[in-house]
Amino acid sequence: MLTIYNDRHALHHGKLEMFRGELVPCFEVPARADYVLQELQQRRLGPIEEPSAFDDAAIARVHAQRYLDFLSGAWDEWVALDPANATRDALPSYWPIRTFRSDVLPASFPARMGLFSYDAGTPLTSGTWTAARAGACCALTAAARVLQGDRAAFALTRPPGHHAGVDFFGGYCFLNNAAIAAQSLRDAGVERVAVLDIDYHHGNGTQAIFYERADVQFTSLHGDPHTEYPYYLGYADERGAGEGLGFNHNLPLARGSGFAQWREALATALRGIAAFKPGALVVSLGLDTFAGDPIAGFTLATADYLRVGEDLSRAGLPTVFVFEGGYAVAEVGANAVNVLEGFMQQSG
Amino acid sequence: MLTIYNDRHALHHGKLEMFRGELVPCFEVPARADYVLQELQQRRLGPIEEPSAFDDAAIARVHAQRYLDFLSGAWDEWVALDPANATRDALPSYWPIRTFRSDVLPASFPARMGLFSYDAGTPLTSGTWTAARAGACCALTAAARVLQGDRAAFALTRPPGHHAGVDFFGGYCFLNNAAIAAQSLRDAGVERVAVLDIDYHHGNGTQAIFYERADVQFTSLHGDPHTEYPYYLGYADERGAGEGLGFNHNLPLARGSGFAQWREALATALRGIAAFKPGALVVSLGLDTFAGDPIAGFTLATADYLRVGEDLSRAGLPTVFVFEGGYAVAEVGANAVNVLEGFMQQSG
Ligand SMILES: [Zn+2]
Ligand SMILES: [Zn+2]
Repeated sequence: MLTIYNDRHALHHGKLEMFRGELVPCFEVPARADYVLQELQQRRLGPIEEPSAFDDAAIARVHAQRYLDFLSGAWDEWVALDPANATRDALPSYWPIRTFRSDVLPASFPARMGLFSYDAGTPLTSGTWTAARAGACCALTAAARVLQGDRAAFALTRPPGHHAGVDFFGGYCFLNNAAIAAQSLRDAGVERVAVLDIDYHHGNGTQAIFYERADVQFTSLHGDPHTEYPYYLGYADERGAGEGLGFNHNLPLARGSGFAQWREALATALRGIAAFKPGALVVSLGLDTFAGDPIAGFTLATADYLRVGEDLSRAGLPTVFVFEGGYAVAEVGANAVNVLEGFMQQSG
Repeated sequence: MLTIYNDRHALHHGKLEMFRGELVPCFEVPARADYVLQELQQRRLGPIEEPSAFDDAAIARVHAQRYLDFLSGAWDEWVALDPANATRDALPSYWPIRTFRSDVLPASFPARMGLFSYDAGTPLTSGTWTAARAGACCALTAAARVLQGDRAAFALTRPPGHHAGVDFFGGYCFLNNAAIAAQSLRDAGVERVAVLDIDYHHGNGTQAIFYERADVQFTSLHGDPHTEYPYYLGYADERGAGEGLGFNHNLPLARGSGFAQWREALATALRGIAAFKPGALVVSLGLDTFAGDPIAGFTLATADYLRVGEDLSRAGLPTVFVFEGGYAVAEVGANAVNVLEGFMQQSG
């Protein structure tokens, strides 16, 4: 399988995130992608190529322009606030929740940072924009290659994307790579695109982006948001709205669920995807369903990911894999590549 | 002038708040009220009495029951998460911004904490609920005494209240003492109540509480939210909604404004209040308009606060003063008591 990778991902390297009243070291680290790359190379899974260049228009098909303007200039604004900020990451401190306005664009940088985010656990660093933008190009390139006839391609990117919405970052995500890939497939003429999110955490950003659309179906298997991040979306009764009603499918599972139960939910998801008759599939490939993940609660084993890949392959669709979460760093390579290898063996 | 005070305010004593990516010591400290109390005693401004007891119903007239349930049990839940939490304050880490749900009540305590807040700068401590509830009783007692015939009374309380909304805390505020006092005046038969907020920061919580009501007029003089906290409300074009249209008045002033300009805005505010013909006035008395305030940007001098009191007195209304912000701790006593003394001298 073709992998699209670029090493600028490492320019995004957050130091600290807020967790239960304290600043703790970030779980989302560059080594995650390094382990996956190494495993891909060792197993000779296929070519590893650099992303093509894309202009901002492809990203602006999903994200609001005022949000992209903010992200691209954020680090410079942060350092302009105080030169000492050059050595510390930016984290927001306040947010426009219900009854507050989101239509105004405050002059204050910290206020705009809160306007465009929803948590205090996603540090914005000097290299965030470069890394996130290059990551989106990986997803766009993988989608383009699938359009050109590859059965599947893998965008090995970070920071991850599925928690980023039209105009907000959070959950370690800035640009929604899976949504950008899905939209690019639509724009290239694929009439219906399915997005399947198998990260442990609900893909709240992706859901929000496509919630009122019937041309992109969103399906997510994830930890029950009553107890698991991101809490405020991901419930089974969220079925889409307007034209999108019936095109959003959440399959929350209780913390502690094992592979048998998870795989049953995957089968349900794949039946719904088949019924939608999509021209292509985008998979948000999170590996934090792994038993050893430090911030998640399912119990999948490394060998299970081969079965996941096989199941996904049987859907018989042109497939773009986009790397999302997975924080058991030493194992994330084997787990990710098992999905891809299972997919290829089944396809082969 | 009668002051209602209780020493349980000191049970709320936050350690750290998030500020620009770092945890820094809290600005809102018990000594603030101690300095005001000491100044009241030294100048023999009038009797200082304990609050009466009120049941939760008076507070639930303003705040949502599910929010009060959360607040009253929050500390125990926080410590139940991890016994080590007993020695550190609770701060939220994620929030339900636009496109996320606020109608679900997650089982996760940190998720509910984010649901009911909007910043990472308002630590919830072991004594927060006791202090906030006692503070609301101070405001209710002051309102009751004004109803009984006192020309004015002062609720010397903390934590402050004007940033707290129907179901959220933030900006060091948990229960909206001014709103609770105003509602109690309405419930006692005062047909129209005016709330005037002269804290440096816009009273976003109070505005949100009364935004669709014509029976409580809200007027606020504050730093321009384009550059000043709370950023997402407080603009001049917010005039109320529905039945409340025309009953919300924001008078933002540029950072750096001095007393002459501020006093002109106060005169505008007081003309609007006179036109409303209220039966009583509640003043959110913040002293962070002071030149020496560490987190604000106006330049009022201590002597100016005598003039403020005189101007307020000339409105000729039964008046409940509720203590809000003011973080130049050593001067907050003189500044607050100057307002009250100016008010009394003018009242004769
Ligand atoms: Zn995840
Ligand atoms: Zn203030």
